[in-house]
Amino acid sequence: MQIGMVGLGRMGSNMVQRLLQKGHDCAVYDSHPEAGQHLAGQGAVNCATLQELVSALARPRAIWLMVPAAVVDTVLDTLVPMLDEDDVVIDGGNSAYHDDIRRGQTLAATGIHYMDVGTSGGVAGLERGYCLMVGGEPAAFARLEPVFAALAPGQDSVAATPGRRTQGTADKGYLHCGPYGAGHFVKMVHNGIEYGMMAAYAEGLNILQAANIGKQSHDVDAETTPLRHPEHYQYDMNIPEITELWRRGSVVTSWLLDLTAQALQSDPELAGYTGHVSDSGEGRWALSAAIDEGVPVPVLSAALFSRFESRGHADYANRVLSAMRKQFGGHVEKPKGEAG
Amino acid sequence: MQIGMVGLGRMGSNMVQRLLQKGHDCAVYDSHPEAGQHLAGQGAVNCATLQELVSALARPRAIWLMVPAAVVDTVLDTLVPMLDEDDVVIDGGNSAYHDDIRRGQTLAATGIHYMDVGTSGGVAGLERGYCLMVGGEPAAFARLEPVFAALAPGQDSVAATPGRRTQGTADKGYLHCGPYGAGHFVKMVHNGIEYGMMAAYAEGLNILQAANIGKQSHDVDAETTPLRHPEHYQYDMNIPEITELWRRGSVVTSWLLDLTAQALQSDPELAGYTGHVSDSGEGRWALSAAIDEGVPVPVLSAALFSRFESRGHADYANRVLSAMRKQFGGHVEKPKGEAG
Amino acid sequence: MQIGMVGLGRMGSNMVQRLLQKGHDCAVYDSHPEAGQHLAGQGAVNCATLQELVSALARPRAIWLMVPAAVVDTVLDTLVPMLDEDDVVIDGGNSAYHDDIRRGQTLAATGIHYMDVGTSGGVAGLERGYCLMVGGEPAAFARLEPVFAALAPGQDSVAATPGRRTQGTADKGYLHCGPYGAGHFVKMVHNGIEYGMMAAYAEGLNILQAANIGKQSHDVDAETTPLRHPEHYQYDMNIPEITELWRRGSVVTSWLLDLTAQALQSDPELAGYTGHVSDSGEGRWALSAAIDEGVPVPVLSAALFSRFESRGHADYANRVLSAMRKQFGGHVEKPKGEAG
Amino acid sequence: MQIGMVGLGRMGSNMVQRLLQKGHDCAVYDSHPEAGQHLAGQGAVNCATLQELVSALARPRAIWLMVPAAVVDTVLDTLVPMLDEDDVVIDGGNSAYHDDIRRGQTLAATGIHYMDVGTSGGVAGLERGYCLMVGGEPAAFARLEPVFAALAPGQDSVAATPGRRTQGTADKGYLHCGPYGAGHFVKMVHNGIEYGMMAAYAEGLNILQAANIGKQSHDVDAETTPLRHPEHYQYDMNIPEITELWRRGSVVTSWLLDLTAQALQSDPELAGYTGHVSDSGEGRWALSAAIDEGVPVPVLSAALFSRFESRGHADYANRVLSAMRKQFGGHVEKPKGEAG
Repeated sequence: MQIGMVGLGRMGSNMVQRLLQKGHDCAVYDSHPEAGQHLAGQGAVNCATLQELVSALARPRAIWLMVPAAVVDTVLDTLVPMLDEDDVVIDGGNSAYHDDIRRGQTLAATGIHYMDVGTSGGVAGLERGYCLMVGGEPAAFARLEPVFAALAPGQDSVAATPGRRTQGTADKGYLHCGPYGAGHFVKMVHNGIEYGMMAAYAEGLNILQAANIGKQSHDVDAETTPLRHPEHYQYDMNIPEITELWRRGSVVTSWLLDLTAQALQSDPELAGYTGHVSDSGEGRWALSAAIDEGVPVPVLSAALFSRFESRGHADYANRVLSAMRKQFGGHVEKPKGEAG
Repeated sequence: MQIGMVGLGRMGSNMVQRLLQKGHDCAVYDSHPEAGQHLAGQGAVNCATLQELVSALARPRAIWLMVPAAVVDTVLDTLVPMLDEDDVVIDGGNSAYHDDIRRGQTLAATGIHYMDVGTSGGVAGLERGYCLMVGGEPAAFARLEPVFAALAPGQDSVAATPGRRTQGTADKGYLHCGPYGAGHFVKMVHNGIEYGMMAAYAEGLNILQAANIGKQSHDVDAETTPLRHPEHYQYDMNIPEITELWRRGSVVTSWLLDLTAQALQSDPELAGYTGHVSDSGEGRWALSAAIDEGVPVPVLSAALFSRFESRGHADYANRVLSAMRKQFGGHVEKPKGEAG
Repeated sequence: MQIGMVGLGRMGSNMVQRLLQKGHDCAVYDSHPEAGQHLAGQGAVNCATLQELVSALARPRAIWLMVPAAVVDTVLDTLVPMLDEDDVVIDGGNSAYHDDIRRGQTLAATGIHYMDVGTSGGVAGLERGYCLMVGGEPAAFARLEPVFAALAPGQDSVAATPGRRTQGTADKGYLHCGPYGAGHFVKMVHNGIEYGMMAAYAEGLNILQAANIGKQSHDVDAETTPLRHPEHYQYDMNIPEITELWRRGSVVTSWLLDLTAQALQSDPELAGYTGHVSDSGEGRWALSAAIDEGVPVPVLSAALFSRFESRGHADYANRVLSAMRKQFGGHVEKPKGEAG
Repeated sequence: MQIGMVGLGRMGSNMVQRLLQKGHDCAVYDSHPEAGQHLAGQGAVNCATLQELVSALARPRAIWLMVPAAVVDTVLDTLVPMLDEDDVVIDGGNSAYHDDIRRGQTLAATGIHYMDVGTSGGVAGLERGYCLMVGGEPAAFARLEPVFAALAPGQDSVAATPGRRTQGTADKGYLHCGPYGAGHFVKMVHNGIEYGMMAAYAEGLNILQAANIGKQSHDVDAETTPLRHPEHYQYDMNIPEITELWRRGSVVTSWLLDLTAQALQSDPELAGYTGHVSDSGEGRWALSAAIDEGVPVPVLSAALFSRFESRGHADYANRVLSAMRKQFGGHVEKPKGEAG
């Protein structure tokens, strides 16, 4: 079928390629028109303006937005007046699901259908396919199914679940999760889980990396806890080999582990990274949803807060702690970076 | 080659079957001799006593213990006096790595080789193979390689890591991680990560499960926080379908997710579980190691503490909180089990 | 000066008494008029309707709301149309500060002044005085100062801070913290801290309470971690005496500790509590604010989530964990309540 | 009575002064003999060697060690051979309670009595008195009571607990908590609580400090979460005044808060601190004890891990996270120190 794609960054560009490969017609637009040139070479219609994109599509149109969450409303403000009744707009980016509810209701009043699609898969999605979590009206979902099916990995991408009793679109890699916002809600939770899993690996590997700490000498003073059993920490662990090992037969096998093993191949010490870890919003929203629901999420929150800390956002709190220690114990801070 | 197996529970019994299938000779022993009968039918020599097992093996012997961590030392006390110089004893269970260091050094003084093998794979290992993390002397590791190779999943069990520069035993699913204790150290960290991953999924699914909380009515009183936006929590999420969906193309694909999707097939509401979650030691030891090393593990610890809480171990602390609230605010506890 | 009080629960009623004792004139109203009868006996004017309260006050009026956060807007909808320009409405309850910003701006457009006052002190406030965190227009703050000064503990209630360089209203126990919402923002953070402190005590006392765990016998099976050193856990700690002890000279002295020691006098085993711990909103909002700000709050969040867990809200997550363990390890849940 | 003090650092020196002021006889020793000169001027006998100290004391002797935990065993190795039956050695420092159990049993075999005294109070203890948590034999405790009473704050140092039914030494500020190790066990838990309380304040003040984040401009890109409501974060909070305010009438009043307010007087921005926060062992041991007991301590552990993170110990874990993000999403790290 025919689809328009707005936003041709990492994700949008790859998705267009996959759609073209599966035989769909794509008209594309990006605020930097050169972003669409390579897609034109693969058969897409590269449009210079949003209006051109709208004009290039037959009614009822389907237009997929793949832009930063912060600019979706701006794009909609421009785009929607150009649309007609029964057109569908899909937000495939990382919007907060609250916004989907608002937008869905607003557009419904004009006869335009809004869909929110949580899209997972990253840069590997072009080859591997994208996992699509969809919210919106069931009829709009049905209309877009050919597009979802083309983007998704498909049924044979993994072994069937033993005992699987029903068959549905989930088995192909896309799912109608519920009304407006349901897609991004599920994606938000997905990303919260992702943060937690990533932190689990990162913390575990950190324990392995420090397993030789008994070989180091330590200060003996009242500010430093002596290591009671240095003989227990004499291991020089080969982390690239261990992550490769775990890929086979262990309980912690996962795609994230595959990627970790891969990263450690090209940079065994991870020397190319400083450890300044961004977060892109979903982890925060997942936490806020949990708080609203009264659901305890100690792991997901710890994972998020570690990212905040990696960016120096605990500094003031730490200075408060040092100030307290100075007051009650006369403790003078050790210099930053000193061992211990 | 020939190997003796002591302990024929879930794990030991399956491992013997896999070894027999791969053409190894197995003599087996369990304190409940009937546990070995089905293995005898598959070609193992089922021994009635430890002494019989020792006698059934040619020197230098290799004896693999697959018994609860709490009884390893007791078994060794009986077994070791029956052994001869250059025999190898392998602890394939879940011992604390401290104990491996002690045992390895003690046995080395008698000319007997001790190996610790962290074994991951669970009940699926018979088919899928076991991931083996090995500690001990390199020469003993080399001698046992045929056994490790038979138990491990093998190189083709997963796709090769792109960019993989070296080849080693990790690619086959077993690895010599270092001296005595290194195997169980790596397994300990593996299980810590496993706890964290499991908790990440569990918390995320809990957020999904409560996504319809806006449909419930709530009390309006000073003890209950009103839900500010019930319209944001109107989703009835189909968790069995969502976990099936995530298996395809998402960032959170993993074997644990596969198992979760499978569990939800046979029991979509998880009504067969009460949520009393055991922990088997490694998660605790991983945390202790992190503390000794000064490595922050907020996610791994949160995962462990959630298990403690699931077993009611926060009850006293919670009563302290209620007592405080009564004192300063006159707050009277709501009955257990009441919403809110 | 003259003040009207709406809401005569635990907090409102005590505050009126304190104001009366300090010589202020109070007109009072509660939706249950009998709630004001005892105050009438102490000199307050007990009004049967909101209109009667408004009529009882000279212009420009000052009306203090002490009602559950969930009904403030409802009360304002009724009250505001009865008011005149330059009247002041004070919300002294536990509103979310977002609501204060909205209300302050809405009322400002009508010439009415809105103030938000975070009020700490609990049931002890009648004697001890209330700590008042105030947001709103500086001129309104200045007008209400006699009321704040009467409610607050006063300068001599605690020893002066050594080195204190400036003197301000903070030294008397009330402070203008900033524009609309600033009072409840500071109170929100105050309560977040309170949750964290309470949890710190509760967790610590729980460690003391279990210090005799080495005296218990434990199962030896693969589902239970053996206690490696039972000889380290042979202490029967006297928690009522220990909390009393800590009140003198220790680093952890606090009013919350005083209250804990007091609670343990009348109920040394805390047998009168089940451990179902409510949360009243501020802890949640503090966490949400931290997330918005990108500030890590691992302790405040852990404290909040423990309360959620105390109310059974981790049950679904725990069942997910048990289902996973069954799948990969064949682990069968132990019955709820069993030791271990 | 007569007492010998070994170790004249911050704590030991102040304790001797307090004992001298209360009329006790003190012989003192430090490995740097000049440390005792000022005490000699106040009436202490400053000894040049341990042997001289032992000789200066009448039998049965009482010798109090106030030295770093890491050197207690070394001091005992030298000291004990000089002692006689029925002498008492008191470890008033920060030993791990495991060591107390071992030492107590070892010394008991020689007829020497060992006591462990957890000592809280810090540099303020000279004036305020020390809170003493004592483990060891009841008879030894009874013999030392005059010393404990002199060091402790005394009964009138705080208001009596309402409803207090019994009177004991806890009311004076010292307590026999149980057999060997009980004193340091209680002190260990005390310090765990202290870490948790400190972190609660530090995190809360961090939320206040960032309450003006809505005034800053932020990047709009896929790596940065937009602040949805900058209008909610426009507050410039005066943290020195707020901490002073909370000292009066609030629920979070405490000695630690008093000290925080005091620190903010001399350094309102805490510019004199870098936030490199040490931990001195008890927090770690408290966590280990909780793990052994199966007691959940999410708050105490989060507080400890924040200190580890303040010293850069999460760096490797954070680099693992960045490497993963690069792999799956092509995310390139922002430079260290950049906002967001």
